[in-house]
Amino acid sequence: MAEQHRKRLNDAFTGSLPLPATLEPHLKEALDQVLRNPGSLIRPEIVTEISLGYGLLETDATDLAIGLEYFHTASLLFDDLPSMDDAVERRGVPCVHLEFGDAGAILAALALINRAYALTWRAVSNSVPERRSKALAYLERHLGVDGLLNGQSMDLHYGTLPHDRQTTEQIAMGKTVSLIRLTLVLPAILGGASNAELHLLERIALYWGLSYQIVDDLKDVLQSSAEAGKTVSRDLSLNRPNVALVIGVGGAVERLHRLIDLGDGMLRRLILVRPGVSFLENLRTELGAEAIQLTQSVCGDAGGGTA
Amino acid sequence: MAEQHRKRLNDAFTGSLPLPATLEPHLKEALDQVLRNPGSLIRPEIVTEISLGYGLLETDATDLAIGLEYFHTASLLFDDLPSMDDAVERRGVPCVHLEFGDAGAILAALALINRAYALTWRAVSNSVPERRSKALAYLERHLGVDGLLNGQSMDLHYGTLPHDRQTTEQIAMGKTVSLIRLTLVLPAILGGASNAELHLLERIALYWGLSYQIVDDLKDVLQSSAEAGKTVSRDLSLNRPNVALVIGVGGAVERLHRLIDLGDGMLRRLILVRPGVSFLENLRTELGAEAIQLTQSVCGDAGGGTA
Repeated sequence: MAEQHRKRLNDAFTGSLPLPATLEPHLKEALDQVLRNPGSLIRPEIVTEISLGYGLLETDATDLAIGLEYFHTASLLFDDLPSMDDAVERRGVPCVHLEFGDAGAILAALALINRAYALTWRAVSNSVPERRSKALAYLERHLGVDGLLNGQSMDLHYGTLPHDRQTTEQIAMGKTVSLIRLTLVLPAILGGASNAELHLLERIALYWGLSYQIVDDLKDVLQSSAEAGKTVSRDLSLNRPNVALVIGVGGAVERLHRLIDLGDGMLRRLILVRPGVSFLENLRTELGAEAIQLTQSVCGDAGGGTA
Repeated sequence: MAEQHRKRLNDAFTGSLPLPATLEPHLKEALDQVLRNPGSLIRPEIVTEISLGYGLLETDATDLAIGLEYFHTASLLFDDLPSMDDAVERRGVPCVHLEFGDAGAILAALALINRAYALTWRAVSNSVPERRSKALAYLERHLGVDGLLNGQSMDLHYGTLPHDRQTTEQIAMGKTVSLIRLTLVLPAILGGASNAELHLLERIALYWGLSYQIVDDLKDVLQSSAEAGKTVSRDLSLNRPNVALVIGVGGAVERLHRLIDLGDGMLRRLILVRPGVSFLENLRTELGAEAIQLTQSVCGDAGGGTA
C-alpha cells in the first residue's frame, strides 16, 4: 500500500488505545509492545478501501479498520498461549506471554478487545438504525460461538475430529474466514450495500479465506520437506489441521485453483455493480501469484487456471 | 429477592447466550456448565430495579442486567486461571479450567464477553444518542485499562507495590468498585439521571464497593484465625492485598463503619431526589448487618455507627 497510507494506519494502530499514566506498569509495557508492533496492516487497509468505496466517512473507516485489527491482534495473543498453539515468536518478537506471563498476555488481549468494541461502536453509530443493528449482529456472529470461537475450539480438539477436507475447511471457516468476512462485509453493510452485493462479498471472503489457508498449509508441508533431513511438516508433527495433509499436496493445489476461480466469478459480478471496490483485483492478483508459485514448486507448471 | 424475580433472572442468565447445535462439544459443555450455574444474581437484580426506577423498558433492563452479569462471570473465569488466582472451586463446582483446560475457560469467557457487549448494545440502542454514547464510554472506561483490567494487573503484581491502605483500596477500586459502578450508574445514565444523581450513585458505589472489600478482607483474617492451629490468613500466606493486614483488624473495622456512614449521606440525598431507588436501603441494611456482625466478633460491641 502507499507509504502515506501505511504511516497513517500505523499511527492509528499505535494511537487508538491510549494508555493512562496510572496504568499498572507491567500491563502498560505489554500493551506498549503490542501497539508498537502492528503486523502487515493489510486487513485495515482493505477495510479502509472498502469503506471509502461504499462512501463511509474516513474517520468511521479508520475506527472500523483499527477496531477489527485489534480484535485480530487479540485473537493472536490468545492463540499463542501455551494452552492454545504454544507459540514462541510473533511479528518478529517473542510472544507477549513469554515476557509478561500468560496473565499479562490475557489482560493485554482483553484491553484490545474492550477498545475494539468501543471503536466499532463509534464507527457504526453514524449509521441508520437498521444498518447499525445488522452490522453489530454480523460482528457478534463472526467473533462468537458461531464463528471465531468455534473454529478455535475445533482447532484445539482436532485430534478428536475426522481428518478430512470438510473438517479442515470448517476450522478455517471459523478461524480464518470469519475475520476476512468482517473485513470485507462489515464496511459494506454500513455503506448500505444491497443484499446481492453482500452475498458476493461473503462468497469472495469464503473462497479467498479458504485459499489463504491452503497456501499456508502447502507452505508448511513444502517448506518443511525442503529442510534437509526433515520431511515431516510442523502441522503433521503437532497433529494440526492441514488440508494438504488430508487430501495430499496435489489435491490441495487443485482445490486452491478451484477456489480462486470461484472467487473470480464473484469478483467480476461485484465490480460490475460496484466499480468502487475494483481495488480487490490487486488482492486477487497477489493471491494468484502465490498459487502459481506454489504450483510451480510442486509440479513445475504455472497452473494456467490462475495465470 | 422475590422467587419469581429470581426465576426470571435465572432463566435470562441461562438463556441469553444460545449455543448453536454445531458448536464444538467441549466449548458447548463448558458454556453449558457456566450458564447453568448463575451466582446469587444480586447484581442483575440491582440493575433491574434501578433500571425500572429510572423508567427503562423491562426488556432493556434485563438485557443490561444479564450483559453486566456475563462480563462479571467472564472476569471470574479469567480470575480463576492458574496464571491469575489459581482457584479450584467457584459457585460450588470445580473451576471451568480444571475440567476444560485453560483454553476452554478462556474461550468460554470470550463467548460471554462477546454476548455481553451485544446485550449491552441492544439495551442502550433505544436511548437517545447522547445517553447512548455516555453509557458506552462509561462501560469502556470501567471494564478497560482505566478500571477492571488495571485493578487485576495491580492485584497480580501486588508483591511489587507498597502494602498500605491506599494501594489495597486502589486495587479494590479497579476490581470491585468498577463493576459495582456499572451496576448502579449505567442504568441511571440510560434513564436520564441528572449529573448530580450520577455523582451520588458513583460515590455510593465507591463507598459500598470498598466496604464489601473490607468485609471480605476481615472474613479472610478472622475466619482463618478461628481455625485451630492456623493463625495466618489465606491472603497473608499468598501475599494478596487485604486492608485488614495492612492497617490491622481494628483499623479495618473503623474504616468499614466510616465508609458506610459516608455512603449513608449520599444515599439519603439520592432518595430525596429519586424515591424510585429507595430499594437501595435494603442493600445498605444488609451491608450494615455484616458490619455489625464483624464488629461484634472483633470487639464484642455493635459499633453504634451502623446500628
